[in-house]
Amino acid sequence: MQVGLNISVSEFLRRDVISARDFKRDHFEYILRAVEDLEKSPGSLDGALRGKLAALLFFEPSTRTYSSFQIAAERLGMKVTGFAGPTGSSITKGETLHDTVKMFEGYGADVFVIRHNRMGAASFAAEISDTPVISAGDGSREHPTQAMVDLYAIKRAFGRIDGLKVGMLGDLRYGRTSSSLAYALSNYDVEITFIAPEALQMRPEVIHFLTRRGVTPKKESALKDVARALDVLYVTRIQKERIPDPTEFEKVKGMYEVNLEALREAKPSLKVLHPLPRVDELSAELDGTSYAHYFTQAAGGLPLRMVLLNLILGGGR
Amino acid sequence: MQVGLNISVSEFLRRDVISARDFKRDHFEYILRAVEDLEKSPGSLDGALRGKLAALLFFEPSTRTYSSFQIAAERLGMKVTGFAGPTGSSITKGETLHDTVKMFEGYGADVFVIRHNRMGAASFAAEISDTPVISAGDGSREHPTQAMVDLYAIKRAFGRIDGLKVGMLGDLRYGRTSSSLAYALSNYDVEITFIAPEALQMRPEVIHFLTRRGVTPKKESALKDVARALDVLYVTRIQKERIPDPTEFEKVKGMYEVNLEALREAKPSLKVLHPLPRVDELSAELDGTSYAHYFTQAAGGLPLRMVLLNLILGGGR
Amino acid sequence: MQVGLNISVSEFLRRDVISARDFKRDHFEYILRAVEDLEKSPGSLDGALRGKLAALLFFEPSTRTYSSFQIAAERLGMKVTGFAGPTGSSITKGETLHDTVKMFEGYGADVFVIRHNRMGAASFAAEISDTPVISAGDGSREHPTQAMVDLYAIKRAFGRIDGLKVGMLGDLRYGRTSSSLAYALSNYDVEITFIAPEALQMRPEVIHFLTRRGVTPKKESALKDVARALDVLYVTRIQKERIPDPTEFEKVKGMYEVNLEALREAKPSLKVLHPLPRVDELSAELDGTSYAHYFTQAAGGLPLRMVLLNLILGGGR
Repeated sequence: MQVGLNISVSEFLRRDVISARDFKRDHFEYILRAVEDLEKSPGSLDGALRGKLAALLFFEPSTRTYSSFQIAAERLGMKVTGFAGPTGSSITKGETLHDTVKMFEGYGADVFVIRHNRMGAASFAAEISDTPVISAGDGSREHPTQAMVDLYAIKRAFGRIDGLKVGMLGDLRYGRTSSSLAYALSNYDVEITFIAPEALQMRPEVIHFLTRRGVTPKKESALKDVARALDVLYVTRIQKERIPDPTEFEKVKGMYEVNLEALREAKPSLKVLHPLPRVDELSAELDGTSYAHYFTQAAGGLPLRMVLLNLILGGGR
Repeated sequence: MQVGLNISVSEFLRRDVISARDFKRDHFEYILRAVEDLEKSPGSLDGALRGKLAALLFFEPSTRTYSSFQIAAERLGMKVTGFAGPTGSSITKGETLHDTVKMFEGYGADVFVIRHNRMGAASFAAEISDTPVISAGDGSREHPTQAMVDLYAIKRAFGRIDGLKVGMLGDLRYGRTSSSLAYALSNYDVEITFIAPEALQMRPEVIHFLTRRGVTPKKESALKDVARALDVLYVTRIQKERIPDPTEFEKVKGMYEVNLEALREAKPSLKVLHPLPRVDELSAELDGTSYAHYFTQAAGGLPLRMVLLNLILGGGR
Repeated sequence: MQVGLNISVSEFLRRDVISARDFKRDHFEYILRAVEDLEKSPGSLDGALRGKLAALLFFEPSTRTYSSFQIAAERLGMKVTGFAGPTGSSITKGETLHDTVKMFEGYGADVFVIRHNRMGAASFAAEISDTPVISAGDGSREHPTQAMVDLYAIKRAFGRIDGLKVGMLGDLRYGRTSSSLAYALSNYDVEITFIAPEALQMRPEVIHFLTRRGVTPKKESALKDVARALDVLYVTRIQKERIPDPTEFEKVKGMYEVNLEALREAKPSLKVLHPLPRVDELSAELDGTSYAHYFTQAAGGLPLRMVLLNLILGGGR
C-alpha cells in the first residue's frame, strides 16, 4: 500500500505487538511513514475506531505510556477501560492475569494494552486470547512500542536511520527500552555502541541477535571514549537497586550522567534521546540545547500509538 | 410491557437497587428478557442515555464490577465520574458518605453506583438522595446486581431456572453474593443446598427468608455428599481471615477446592458458577470443560448493567 | 462584552489562573455573571470545547476539585487525561514537574489543571509552558478557582457582595482557600473578620495586601464574640497536625466547632460556607437549617469551572 514496501496493510490487522523482533524493516517503515502522514494531517485519524473498546491493563504504572495510549485511543473514538496501576484492582486480591484478560474479553475489549513487570506476561495474554495484545512494557526485556517511538524520533531528526552511529547508555542489562530499540535498529544499516558498566552491559542474547542480523555492536564502559563519534545517544536510567554496593552506585551514577561536560567533544549534530522519565542521569542543562531531542521523541508517542491502534484494528484510513 | 409479566417498565424508573429482596419474580424476568434482547441486538442501547452522568463511588475497589458499570454507562452514552477505590479520595480525609453523595448530587449525577464495605451504606445513600442508587456490593450482606448476573447465567445455561438444584459453596456467612443470589432464587421453584463448614454456613436470617418464601434450603458440610445431585454449583471464595485458626484454614481450604476430582460424580450437565475473582477455590483445570460457566457468567455483567441503568434512567428503548 | 464592565472577553483568553490576586473586580464580576447565565441555560456550553484536551495533574488528591474539573471538561466536550493522585504516576519514580508538564504538552494538552502540595508549583508550570495553567490548589497559599466558587456562593445567597460582613474561621494560616477568598473579597466593599487561635491566624502578607486594597480586616480569637454581626461565616478545617500539643488541639477543636449552639446569636440570614470536605468543625446539625449554604456552594463548582475553561480556551459562546 505504500510505495516501495513489500508489505500490505493487512499484515497489521489483529496482529499482536509483543516483541520488536517480530517486525521487519518494512513494517517499521510502514508505521513510520503513517506517523509522518498523521503529523502532516492532524485529525485525519480522529474517530476512525469509533465504537471500539481498548482495555488498558497496567499491572505496573507508567504515566507516560498509559496517557499516550489513553489519549490515542480516545482520539481514535474508542472507549477506554482497565486500570492505570495495580492499586485496588482485583490483582491485589490475587486474581491471575488469565482471569483478568478473560474478564475484559467478556466485556467486549477490542484490543489489550498490557504492561506488566513479569517477563512474558503480554505474550501469555496473546496466547490465551483472540483479541490483539499490545505490550506496553514487559518485564526487563521488551517495550516494542517505545522502540517504534524511538525509531520515529531518530528518523525525524536525521530524515533516515541508515548510516547512523547510535550509542546506548545506562542500564542496558535490565532496561527494556534498550533491548527493544536494539532489535528494531538491527533492521537498519547502523553502528551500535553499548555504553555501560560491565555489570549492566547488554545481555548476550541481544548481542547474539544483532550479530546474526549483521549488526555487530561494540561495547564501551565510558561515554567520553565514544561521544565524539555518535549521531544518536540513547540514555536510560541506572536504577540504584541494580547495583548492590552503594559506593559503587555513586561512582557509576557520576560516570554515566549525561551533561554538557560529558558531551564536550560530541558532534554539534548529535541528538540525545531518552525514553523518560529521567532522574539524574540526564542533566536539565541540556534541555535548551540542540542536543535535546527527548521531548520531541516523547511527543511522538501519541501519533505513533494512534497509527498502531488504527492499523491493528483496521480503522481503514 | 413484556408478554405474561404483571409489571410495567415504569416500575423500574428511578428505582433504587439495594437488596435482591426488593424485587419480585416478574422484575427479575423482565430484566433477564431485556438482557436476552440486548444480546440478540448488540448496540440497540448504545447512546440511549446520552447526556446523563453516572457517579461510580467505589469506597471498596472491585475491578470487575467497576469496569462493567463504567463500560455499561459509557456504551449507553453516559459520562462517568467518581472513583474506583478509596485511595486519594476525600474519604481518606474523613469525609462522610453523606457529604460525598451530596457533592456528586450537586455536580448533577443522574445515578449513583455505590460499593462500600459497610453494611447499609447504599441504603443510607438512597435515603438521603433523590437520585437513584444502585448498590454494587454492600458490607457482607448484599450484591443485588451480581445476583441478577448470576440468574441470567443460570437461565442462559438451562433456558429456565425453575426445577433446578443449586448448590452454593464457600463462605456463605460473609459472602455477599451468595445471600443476594439466594434471595433472588427464592422467587423460583428451586432446591438450594448450602455447602460450607459450620462456621461459614449461611446466616439464619437468609434461611428464614427462604423458608418463608417456600424454598427450604438444605445444609451440607461436604461437596462430595451432594455433588452428584446438582445442576448448578455456585462457588465462592473462603477468605483466610475468616477462619481464626490457620491449621483449620488449610484443612477447610482443601475440602472446598472445586476441581475435577471433586466433581467426579457430578452430572455432565452441571454448570459451575463463580462471581470471580477466584484464587485457589476453583481450579483452572475446569476452565476447558463443559462445567465451566463462570466466564460466560461474568461476560453477562455488561449487558445486565446496561439494561438495568437503562430501565432505571428511562432510556426508553 | 458585559454591560458596565471595563473588560473584554479576550482578557481571559489563554490566561493562567494562579492567584486570586491576579484578577480585578471586573474579572470576577464577568465570571460570576457568566455562571449565572449558564445556570439559567444549562447545557448552553455543552460541547463548546469539543476536540480539546484537558490535562488534570493532581499531584495531591482532591475528589471534589478533581471531579468538578473532570465533569466540567467533559461536558464542554473535552477529553481528559492526567492523574487524580500521585499513586503510580511517574512522580513516584522521581520525575520532575517540569518533565511531566512537557510530556503532556507534547501529547497536545490545551490546558493544565494542576494541584500540588508545593507552593509555586502552578506558577512554575505556567512559566515553562505556553499552555494555559489553572491552579487547583497550590501549597498552603492559593486555590483561586475555589475563591471564585466561594464568591459565586455569596453572590447567589445575597444578590451582591458589597456591604457584607464576612467572618473566616479555622486554620487561616495554612488554609489555602481562606487566603484566596480574602484576596478576591478585597475587590469588594466588605468587612472581613479573621477568627482563629493566634497560632493559626491569617498570614501577615495577606493582611497587608488587604489593607493596601482598603479592606482592613479584624482579628478575633472566638466565634461567639463576633457571630451576631456576620452575614457570611466561612468555615475551614483545623488540621490536627498543625497544633503541636494534642491537649491544645482538643481545646481549639472544641472552640472552633460550628454548631447550632455556636450560632445562637447569629442573624437568621447568616449563611455558613465551607470549601469541604468537612470533618468535625462543621456540625451536621446545621445541614437542614437556613444557615447551611455549603452544599449549594459546592454545586457551583461545576458551572464555575465550565465557564472558566470556556473563557480561557475561547469556546466562543
